[in-house]
Amino acid sequence: MDVTKNNFAAVFSDITKAIEDADFLAIDGEFTGLDTPQVGHVTFYDTPEERYQKLRKGSTDFLLIQFGLAAFTYDDETKSHTAKLFNFYVFPRPYTRQAPDRRFLCQSSSIDFLASQGFDFNKLFRDGIPYLTLADETQLRETIRSKHKDYSQFSSPAFMSPFGADPGPSKGPVCVPDEHKEFIADVGNKVAKFLEQDAEDTLQLPPCGGFPRKLIYQTIRLKFSSSLHLETKSGEKKERYIVITKIKGEDDMKAKEQAKQNAELNELDDAVGFCKVTRLLSQSGKLIVGHNMLLDVLHLINQFCIHLPKEYEEFKSLTRCVFPRLLDTKLMASTNPLKNHIHNSTLGDLKKILEYSPFTKPKVDLPEEFSRYSGNEHLHEAGYDAYITGLCFISMSNYLGSCQNPPKEYIPPKSQLIEPFINKLFLMRVSDIPYINLSGADLQMSREHVFHITFPKEWKTSDIHELFSPYGNIQISWLDDISAFVSLYKKDNAQAALKGLSAKNSVYRVVTYEAYKKEISPKRDVPVSRKRSSEDVDIDMANKKRKSLNVQAAPFVSRLKPAILEDKKQEKNGNNSSGRHSDKKAQGDANDDQGDNKMETGEKLFDESENWD
Amino acid sequence: MDVTKNNFAAVFSDITKAIEDADFLAIDGEFTGLDTPQVGHVTFYDTPEERYQKLRKGSTDFLLIQFGLAAFTYDDETKSHTAKLFNFYVFPRPYTRQAPDRRFLCQSSSIDFLASQGFDFNKLFRDGIPYLTLADETQLRETIRSKHKDYSQFSSPAFMSPFGADPGPSKGPVCVPDEHKEFIADVGNKVAKFLEQDAEDTLQLPPCGGFPRKLIYQTIRLKFSSSLHLETKSGEKKERYIVITKIKGEDDMKAKEQAKQNAELNELDDAVGFCKVTRLLSQSGKLIVGHNMLLDVLHLINQFCIHLPKEYEEFKSLTRCVFPRLLDTKLMASTNPLKNHIHNSTLGDLKKILEYSPFTKPKVDLPEEFSRYSGNEHLHEAGYDAYITGLCFISMSNYLGSCQNPPKEYIPPKSQLIEPFINKLFLMRVSDIPYINLSGADLQMSREHVFHITFPKEWKTSDIHELFSPYGNIQISWLDDISAFVSLYKKDNAQAALKGLSAKNSVYRVVTYEAYKKEISPKRDVPVSRKRSSEDVDIDMANKKRKSLNVQAAPFVSRLKPAILEDKKQEKNGNNSSGRHSDKKAQGDANDDQGDNKMETGEKLFDESENWD
Repeated sequence: MDVTKNNFAAVFSDITKAIEDADFLAIDGEFTGLDTPQVGHVTFYDTPEERYQKLRKGSTDFLLIQFGLAAFTYDDETKSHTAKLFNFYVFPRPYTRQAPDRRFLCQSSSIDFLASQGFDFNKLFRDGIPYLTLADETQLRETIRSKHKDYSQFSSPAFMSPFGADPGPSKGPVCVPDEHKEFIADVGNKVAKFLEQDAEDTLQLPPCGGFPRKLIYQTIRLKFSSSLHLETKSGEKKERYIVITKIKGEDDMKAKEQAKQNAELNELDDAVGFCKVTRLLSQSGKLIVGHNMLLDVLHLINQFCIHLPKEYEEFKSLTRCVFPRLLDTKLMASTNPLKNHIHNSTLGDLKKILEYSPFTKPKVDLPEEFSRYSGNEHLHEAGYDAYITGLCFISMSNYLGSCQNPPKEYIPPKSQLIEPFINKLFLMRVSDIPYINLSGADLQMSREHVFHITFPKEWKTSDIHELFSPYGNIQISWLDDISAFVSLYKKDNAQAALKGLSAKNSVYRVVTYEAYKKEISPKRDVPVSRKRSSEDVDIDMANKKRKSLNVQAAPFVSRLKPAILEDKKQEKNGNNSSGRHSDKKAQGDANDDQGDNKMETGEKLFDESENWD
Repeated sequence: MDVTKNNFAAVFSDITKAIEDADFLAIDGEFTGLDTPQVGHVTFYDTPEERYQKLRKGSTDFLLIQFGLAAFTYDDETKSHTAKLFNFYVFPRPYTRQAPDRRFLCQSSSIDFLASQGFDFNKLFRDGIPYLTLADETQLRETIRSKHKDYSQFSSPAFMSPFGADPGPSKGPVCVPDEHKEFIADVGNKVAKFLEQDAEDTLQLPPCGGFPRKLIYQTIRLKFSSSLHLETKSGEKKERYIVITKIKGEDDMKAKEQAKQNAELNELDDAVGFCKVTRLLSQSGKLIVGHNMLLDVLHLINQFCIHLPKEYEEFKSLTRCVFPRLLDTKLMASTNPLKNHIHNSTLGDLKKILEYSPFTKPKVDLPEEFSRYSGNEHLHEAGYDAYITGLCFISMSNYLGSCQNPPKEYIPPKSQLIEPFINKLFLMRVSDIPYINLSGADLQMSREHVFHITFPKEWKTSDIHELFSPYGNIQISWLDDISAFVSLYKKDNAQAALKGLSAKNSVYRVVTYEAYKKEISPKRDVPVSRKRSSEDVDIDMANKKRKSLNVQAAPFVSRLKPAILEDKKQEKNGNNSSGRHSDKKAQGDANDDQGDNKMETGEKLFDESENWD
């Protein structure tokens, strides 16, 4: 079900009930863009903390514009789920002039991609649901209250000076300029006639500009004192006009003002809009499932709750507080034993894979009003993506159940089998750290076999390969035209490579990854990982997981296989834009697939790009 | 006529001819936003140079998304004009992965406003005309050429390694992972069958990801060597798939590759898109008329020609070079003798005013294919706004002619009567400098009667009025919660006010405008106006103007009347968003019109807001 400002109030109770009744929730977001490379290149060797900082700075100026929510309920009797699906269009329309007027970023390729998927931008901008964070709401409520208080304290509107907020001694009425005199006289006559007639109680003046409106207020009030109530309204095309209403004494005037003030407070309540949904989600405390959900979570918090904190640890505890139980299906699909049977964890493909053996297609009923997606593919529509993320979660959970001894047919979201995946968010394009661990310390991996190299602009992949050829196969991760990370396939060769290549040289320069990080850390303003205590990596936890999941050792290292190393851009855009601008490095780049081998951030494993799209 | 990527190529010759035939051109742009206050608050006392710097930094991250062009031709016999009208949708769709993927800003209130005017964002994002500046085009052409060169130098595609750009000695084929083996075997069988059959020359494989595509390339080429040509194509929804074509020997293969390379160059040519129009405009050297056109000019140059220079003087000469003859109808309407008869220079109102005495509604024919606007108001659609800007220009020019002795019925765009307005761009919301003078030095005005004041957060307008009450009436220009500019109405009181108020004081602090500018100049990074030579203000020019136009002395000072001091936001958005966030300063702000009295940048004249909307 599409939810816009037009039906939001009407279906809000349905949304509330769907969340209350759900066993688990699946979500997805669509954004106006993904990254600003200037702000912080993500690299293949980012620590979780560094990645967080880069996304916080480079991705959160984009806007989440569509939010999908799928609420799944399991029925023990029918052994099937019911899903209620909501596809929200969300847009920060400033509801009054006092409300925040947000500036946000768009990325051309993302907008182009959404447009090619049939995304309805007119619906978004015309009918999107507005929102106000708690902080915005509180401030605006305070402004309105103080305005109402001042109002009751200082004046009755009919007698108030129209010339400004403070009719001080030094201020007089506006002098009507010559060119407006005829217009103002006309309005005066019109109003006089209106007052004489009994037929109508209100008179709507034609739209006009702010200055003429000011002159009208002044003239009408001087001439007709307290017998009229004036109010400015906005038409459909934002044109502003004055509505004049006859009043029957002071009480009537007060009642009219009271009604107006109440309307203002109700309007504010409406303006909270979509934030009511994120508050419901948060308060439910239920399991929230997403696919490759790090960006979704960052946007949900930053846009609808509170600005993302600068401190990484603070971000972790904030996230646990806002969304206490998160699960990322992409991480699940990239982990053994599931990974063994999944050659592609892109959402659309994953859904299809999980419908066939050894998996079982889940039985899910869609009530009539949510049936738009049944049988139809709507990939990259947030509501649909949330729905199939939920389907993937059910399939994968049940598969884990089938591996038990004895096998279990249904695995509820509270099962211990799910526990190892809770609050771990998939990390894209990081060589060897598969996730951000919200509930504990992150994994730390050695970078001793990684080097930073700078070289002449003319160098191509082959030159770097040649340079490193004595030390075995390498993986090149381009940073820009003249620098890259190089990782040795044979880690044991690290010392030899350092010795052989780090001597001063006028053509190229090779330093260790550590040395490079130290060089740039003040420049790039990326906080250095804080020292951890010795309980750093939760080995116990990994053991527990291994036992209960019956997986192979080192479950997450399986991620290093290229097939599952696509990227958020592929998830989000279906294509990959970060292969751009690097063609100059390609020799004989005669077809797209070969072109794919090159990328700015250059994640190559086993000598091929993993930037498959 | 709407122009999108779908009809751009078809109507380009019509556009070229329209520009060639025109006596003058009128233009207008619609943008995704207007300003980023963080970057640089515009103030009422900005010099033209300061204003340029603030707009350059705070406005050019927004995008021009719709461009209106009206080409007017005068027919001596019928004594009427013909107008050809083009309404371009412009969007920087990245046409390949090598093309720039632009990030751009949007302002919620602007998007909301455009949406309320019926702006079709789906048309924009799906069908907008792309563009490449000359610099982008040159770089991309170089990339393509070097790719083609490398290609012919190193290999024939059928024999090329599919594993990367550089099939160096250390690189071997990709090992097909277990989970892909079945899929790849299936494709191999399919292709073998296709080769056996004579029926079809091409085989289209189903869409799949980049990694499987790479495996397919590798497998097919190993198995079938040079008998097949492979190419990756993109479908409507950006899904990518391989097309396999049978080839008849090396020549056929070369021909196929040549065709592909030619297609790439043609594609680049198409991608230049809208920049071809701005190049035509520039090359025509014709008079280009706009209404309140400073932002339009900045965007046209920055987005489609070259990044705006940091140096103000460089900007002036660049603009003269790109658009040698510009005329701003808002400046014209704000200047006597025209100003005397124009109480509102907002475009829509101006058009109406200029249809009645003492003005004459111009006779303009719209050929059939451009008649969409005849009789219909489409305000804030760029094509329509350009059209009526042209109408306004004709009316105003002819009125100047009617003031001559003997009166002239028609004033051509090359008339000396127009000359005083050439290359002067209207400056919004500047107290006393009406325009940027592209062809000479800007006006310089004294700021000796202007003070900067800081005060407690609780202060309201009345407190400032009270403080300054001994020195006569003032104009307050809010900067934020705790500071404002205050300008004395009686300039002679400046010395007394400075004496009386600048003493140290724990509650407030008053300094001269000069002192304030010195304090902030390093912080704000706004270049200080360079020293001018003594020929600073072109007094001669003003004299010439006075003579030929038969206007009152000091023609531009008339601008100080509030009625014509609306603002670009009103022109562009029909409303004003900069009154936001300042309500706390309002006492008894019980209706919108009183709310209008307050604004961040606070341009009040004669004690009222000029922020009329």
